[in-house]
Amino acid sequence: MTQFADISRLSLNQATTQRWSLREAVEGCARAGIPAIGIWRDKLEAAGLDAAVRLVRDAGLRVSSLCRGGMFPAATAAERQARIDDNRRAIEHAAALGADVLVLVCGPAPGKEIQAARAMVADAVEQLIPFAAERGVRMGIEPLHPMYAGDRSVITTLAEALDEVERFGSPHVGVVIDTYHVWWDPYLFAQIGRAAGHILGFHVCDWLVPTPHMLLGRGMIGDGVIEFRPIRAAVEAAGYRGPIEVEIFNQAIWDMPGDVVLALMRERFVEYV
Amino acid sequence: MTQFADISRLSLNQATTQRWSLREAVEGCARAGIPAIGIWRDKLEAAGLDAAVRLVRDAGLRVSSLCRGGMFPAATAAERQARIDDNRRAIEHAAALGADVLVLVCGPAPGKEIQAARAMVADAVEQLIPFAAERGVRMGIEPLHPMYAGDRSVITTLAEALDEVERFGSPHVGVVIDTYHVWWDPYLFAQIGRAAGHILGFHVCDWLVPTPHMLLGRGMIGDGVIEFRPIRAAVEAAGYRGPIEVEIFNQAIWDMPGDVVLALMRERFVEYV
Repeated sequence: MTQFADISRLSLNQATTQRWSLREAVEGCARAGIPAIGIWRDKLEAAGLDAAVRLVRDAGLRVSSLCRGGMFPAATAAERQARIDDNRRAIEHAAALGADVLVLVCGPAPGKEIQAARAMVADAVEQLIPFAAERGVRMGIEPLHPMYAGDRSVITTLAEALDEVERFGSPHVGVVIDTYHVWWDPYLFAQIGRAAGHILGFHVCDWLVPTPHMLLGRGMIGDGVIEFRPIRAAVEAAGYRGPIEVEIFNQAIWDMPGDVVLALMRERFVEYV
Repeated sequence: MTQFADISRLSLNQATTQRWSLREAVEGCARAGIPAIGIWRDKLEAAGLDAAVRLVRDAGLRVSSLCRGGMFPAATAAERQARIDDNRRAIEHAAALGADVLVLVCGPAPGKEIQAARAMVADAVEQLIPFAAERGVRMGIEPLHPMYAGDRSVITTLAEALDEVERFGSPHVGVVIDTYHVWWDPYLFAQIGRAAGHILGFHVCDWLVPTPHMLLGRGMIGDGVIEFRPIRAAVEAAGYRGPIEVEIFNQAIWDMPGDVVLALMRERFVEYV
């Protein structure tokens, strides 16, 4: 088995190398032989869209995702409309980059009414479908760990995301599965099976025990308690054969030199994923 | 509506007043007119079982729960047996105290195999049922928030707990529902309905945004984003009419004088629950 074969599905999500600009991340992937990248919108803004498109094209990198759209619920109709408009821009950028998927982190409730916020998410995604379809962009609803239900996403489980996806019935809406967010789910494997045909992205990140920080305490693959292989096998059995992004929010990893992070990530990916 | 009527179902879970001994907590409840208490085993050990039984009886307090049994999964059969033996002691103490329920916090996996750990939980609870039945004790499986799946409980949702409870089919095993652990669940109300006849305890605690600490950052009722009234209504519609425990792990609350905490808890309970 060649080294290339081992990492042929590996993708660097830019959140793992937070200090790198888009140019630095693209060049880092090239040096490490990593064939794909997940791009964040703040890095894209800093680089400029046209420059970014050239960068990834010239490097021959596949853009596995654009992160992130979403953040739909808001207290007023005007603010909800502004969020939808922002997502239209994200869709345009995803189209320009040829990204496999626009990842949707759906957002928290503006107040205490979590069920009402879920309805706002459904309403916003439904409004965006024709726009995404025209531009050939697929949106992936990423259920986030329930510990983010109060500040990042009212969509908390794969089952819940699939309820929406099935209701929409559009090839332009699917799910993104991140091991960090779903590993605990007692119904995970049944839901991955149910997700067949709707999986638009697969992210890997470990769960540390103890978890040092609720946002920046995520773990390098192999440092935590998640068994990746059965989850990857289930995702593949459900038909997903696209890039596997390593997305790790972790201050200690951010403080390491990017090339060291990529080398470690490659090694752990081959060993554990 | 008299003040007594307002708080007639209120119970102080001792975890809310961590610095108080059992005697201090019992006396605090008496001063505040709180009619019930949830007792922790470390406080019970410190007080001595016989003294504790006299304390609560003399104060006329209802013991709404004993916290906690559980912690079942372990790497070896010998260690798993030791955990079961410890739970037998907890059952005996719950019987002596006349506690409404022994709360089970089921424990984390000893390694990475979360599904295997879930089977260990089911096996242990099943072994304990005859012992609990002989002593007239009911065990309540408390699903913990999924952010504790790695270090406190592999049982993470009400649905999962109910799967086990229905499988056992014993009146000596049910569920304990804590708003802090389940508020995010998209299927919460359906599962509370399903829990009818199996709810052995109901705890209230708020979810702070942002959450300052994963264990000690839980919120006083009204300080967070949880809507208590609809959850309480659903729990009552499912037939539960027992005590409602306020159980809050929060360093700032622990640092307040206990009488102040009880006064605040009473006020917020009446306003929000």
